[in-house]
Amino acid sequence: MTPSEPLMSRRLFLRTGTAIASGSLAARTLHQVTEAEAAENLPPHVPAWSQPLGTSVDDRPYGTPSPYESQVVRRSLKWITATRESSVNFTPLHDLDGIITPNGLCFERHHSGAPDIPPHEHRLMLHGLVERPLLFTMDEIKRFPCESRFYFLECAANGGLEWFGAQLNGCQYTHGMVHCVQYTGVPLKTVLNEAGLKRQAKWILAEGADAASMTRSIPLDKAMDDCLLAYSMNGERLRPEQGYPLRLLVPGWEGNMWIKWLRRLEVGDQPWHSREETARYTDLLENGKARQFTWVMEAKSVVTHPSPENPLLGKGFQQLKGLAWSGRGKIARVDVSFDGGMNWQPARLDEPVLPKCLTRFYADWTWNGEERLIQSRAVDEFGYVQPQYPALLKARGINSIYHNNGIQTWLVNPSGEVGNVRLGS
Amino acid sequence: MTPSEPLMSRRLFLRTGTAIASGSLAARTLHQVTEAEAAENLPPHVPAWSQPLGTSVDDRPYGTPSPYESQVVRRSLKWITATRESSVNFTPLHDLDGIITPNGLCFERHHSGAPDIPPHEHRLMLHGLVERPLLFTMDEIKRFPCESRFYFLECAANGGLEWFGAQLNGCQYTHGMVHCVQYTGVPLKTVLNEAGLKRQAKWILAEGADAASMTRSIPLDKAMDDCLLAYSMNGERLRPEQGYPLRLLVPGWEGNMWIKWLRRLEVGDQPWHSREETARYTDLLENGKARQFTWVMEAKSVVTHPSPENPLLGKGFQQLKGLAWSGRGKIARVDVSFDGGMNWQPARLDEPVLPKCLTRFYADWTWNGEERLIQSRAVDEFGYVQPQYPALLKARGINSIYHNNGIQTWLVNPSGEVGNVRLGS
Repeated sequence: MTPSEPLMSRRLFLRTGTAIASGSLAARTLHQVTEAEAAENLPPHVPAWSQPLGTSVDDRPYGTPSPYESQVVRRSLKWITATRESSVNFTPLHDLDGIITPNGLCFERHHSGAPDIPPHEHRLMLHGLVERPLLFTMDEIKRFPCESRFYFLECAANGGLEWFGAQLNGCQYTHGMVHCVQYTGVPLKTVLNEAGLKRQAKWILAEGADAASMTRSIPLDKAMDDCLLAYSMNGERLRPEQGYPLRLLVPGWEGNMWIKWLRRLEVGDQPWHSREETARYTDLLENGKARQFTWVMEAKSVVTHPSPENPLLGKGFQQLKGLAWSGRGKIARVDVSFDGGMNWQPARLDEPVLPKCLTRFYADWTWNGEERLIQSRAVDEFGYVQPQYPALLKARGINSIYHNNGIQTWLVNPSGEVGNVRLGS
Repeated sequence: MTPSEPLMSRRLFLRTGTAIASGSLAARTLHQVTEAEAAENLPPHVPAWSQPLGTSVDDRPYGTPSPYESQVVRRSLKWITATRESSVNFTPLHDLDGIITPNGLCFERHHSGAPDIPPHEHRLMLHGLVERPLLFTMDEIKRFPCESRFYFLECAANGGLEWFGAQLNGCQYTHGMVHCVQYTGVPLKTVLNEAGLKRQAKWILAEGADAASMTRSIPLDKAMDDCLLAYSMNGERLRPEQGYPLRLLVPGWEGNMWIKWLRRLEVGDQPWHSREETARYTDLLENGKARQFTWVMEAKSVVTHPSPENPLLGKGFQQLKGLAWSGRGKIARVDVSFDGGMNWQPARLDEPVLPKCLTRFYADWTWNGEERLIQSRAVDEFGYVQPQYPALLKARGINSIYHNNGIQTWLVNPSGEVGNVRLGS
C-alpha cells in the first residue's frame, strides 16, 4: 500500500448481510464527518462525560480496570474437576493484546488451593547433597543478584480436552492455560553455589508450601542453566495464586514444575519419582508404555482474532491476531492458512521476539463473507514445526492428556461467527 | 567469582552495628540449617499455612496483590496543588522490579480528574487539512492493523520540585512521574493516511475528552513516525485514569502530549499555541526568554535500591538496582558512583534494552558501614550523557520546572539509612 492509500475505503469496509449482536461495525461503514457532526464535536461542545470534574488522584491508590471491561476475567469450568481447590481457571487470551498478561488475569492451576503465606515468616530450606545446608528468609533471598526475564508459563494440560475432540467453544478454554509476564528473581545456580554442591549432585527436588506439598524432580543441568527463584512478576511481588512469596521458574518447561510457594530444595543423585511425575504428567502411548520427564513445551500457536469469542464484525479488511511460543527458544516464523492448511502465508511477528516468551503475530486479509478454515503454525529457531492433529495423534495415540501442541482450526461461517473444528482426525 | 564460591559467606554478611527496625537481616547472618530445623522443615512437618485447603480458582476472577503488599501503592502530596482533580500521584518505583509497571501503579497526572467514558459512545473525530474528515468508533479503530511496543511515559515535571532543592525524601516522589508498559494501538499515520493529508498539512492538534479539554500541537513528522492511537496497556484495555478508551502515544516525548481520552485530531499548517504549550510546559531561562516545544525527555536515571525507602539492611555484599531511560532511543550505558561522582564504574544492563523504554541496571558492591554518596549516570545511544546539577543549572538558570534530568545523589549514612542530598549547587 502506498502511504496515502486508504486501507478501509467505503468499497472494502462493507456491511455484512447478517446482523451480529455484539458488533456496531456491522451496521455502519467508515463514517465521513458531516458539517453538523463537526460542529457538535468541536469545542465548546463536548460530550456529557466531559462536563463534570473527573476522579481525583487520591481515588485509586491501586487502580482497577474500567467497569466497562468487567467481562475480561479468568473463567473456570465447573465440571472439569471434583473440587474447586484442585482445579484450573483460564486466561482470557481472546481479550488480550501484545505479549504481557496482566497479573490479575494469569490462569491458575492449584492442587489444594492457594495458601495464604506471611512473607516474613516464610523460609526456603536448601539441603541434601550440599556442603552447607541453608535456611533463607525472603530478605536474604532478595539480597542476592537478581535478573528480570519475560517468560511464558504453560500448563502441560493446556488443550488437554482437545485431544479427545472436546472442541471447547473459545480460545480462553482451548489455549488459556498459558500466561506471559516479566519475572524477577535470583538464578537458582547462585543459591546452589552459595550452599556448595557435592560431587554426586545430579537432581533437585522442589517442594511447595501448599497443602498438596507439590513436589517435582529437576535435573541439575536445567537448575544450573536458567531456573530462577522468582519473587516478582510484572514489576510487583508475585500474586498469592502465583506462588507468593517465592516461586521456582523452569523456563520453557511444563508449568507443573514451576513450584509455587517454594519452601524446600533438596539436592540428590537421582529423581524422586513423585506422584506428579509418575501417576500424573506422564504420557501413556498406544503401546502401553508411558513417556516420563517430557518437560519441554514444544512450539505452539493460536489465532485469538478471529476466534469463537471474537467473530468478524463486517466484510472487507481484517487483521488476524495470534500468539506463538516455544519452550526451546525463540519463535522463528508463524504461518497462517485460510483454507484449512492447503495454502500458507507468513505472518508478521511483532517485536521484540524473545526466547521462551509469547510472540504476537498478525496477518492482514480480506473477507468477502465466505466460509474459511483458519489455522496458524509456529516454527521455532531450531526448525521444529507445530504439527497437524493427524500427525500428532499418530505419534501419541489416543490416551494423551498433556503436551497437546496440535494446530488449532477455527471455522468462520458466512455470518462471521467462529467455531472450533477438528480436521482430518 | 568462580561457580562454587559463596557470594555471602558469614565473613561478608555481617550484622550492622545499628538496629534497623524494618530489617530482619540486620539481626542475623546466612543461616546454616541445624538438624532440628531440618526435621521441622521436612514432610510431614509443614507450616500452619500449609495445612488447610487454600483459596479456589473461583475466588479471584480478576486477581489483586497479597494483603501483605498493601503498602505498594501510588501516593500523592496534598500540598502540591490547589485541588485533587488537577494534581498528580507517583509510581512506587522503589518497590518495583524489572521494567514493567503494573497498570494499577502507573502514576496519574490530571488537569480536571479522570472522566468516566462509555467506550461504545466514544468517538474520535479526525478533521482539518484532510481529504475525508472521519468519525471513528472504538470498534472501527480496533479493526486497523495494530502494533505493540514497550514505552516509558514521563511527565515533563518529574523531579520538578528538585530544581529548587526540595530534596523530597524518597524516589517515589523525586522520580515517580514515570511508568513503563507495553502499549497496543494503531499507528497514527495509518488513520491520517485513511483520511488523506492535504499538501499544506504540517501539524496535528490532539484534544482530550476531559473537562480541561487538554490540547497539544504535534509536528506532522512525529505524527507520521512512531505515534500510536493506543487502546491497551500491558495486554488489557487502558485503565480509566490512563485515557480509557483511547490515548495518543508520543514515544520519548513529554507525557503532557500523550493526550488521554482522545476525542479529536485536527490537521493544520501551524501550531495552535494552546495553554499547555505557552503558559505551561515551556522553560523560562535566566535571560527572560522561554524555550518552547522542548518535547524530548533526555536521558535520565535513578538508583531505586538503596534509596530513602530502601535502606541498607546489613554490611557486606549489596546489589544496587536502578532504572534508566532516554526519549531519543536506547540506553547505551549506565555508570554508578559511590563517592559522589569522583569515580565511576559501569553498571550491568538487564536485557532486553529497548528504545524509549525503561532499562533496568544493577551493580554489585560491598558496604562496610561507611558513609557513601551514590549516583547513577545514563548515556544514550547517541552519546548524550546525563548531566550533574551544577551543569544543568548553569544552562537553564533558576526558573525551571520541567525537564529535570540531573544526576540524583543518595547519601548512605553509617546506620544504612539513605537521604536525598544536593552536591555542588
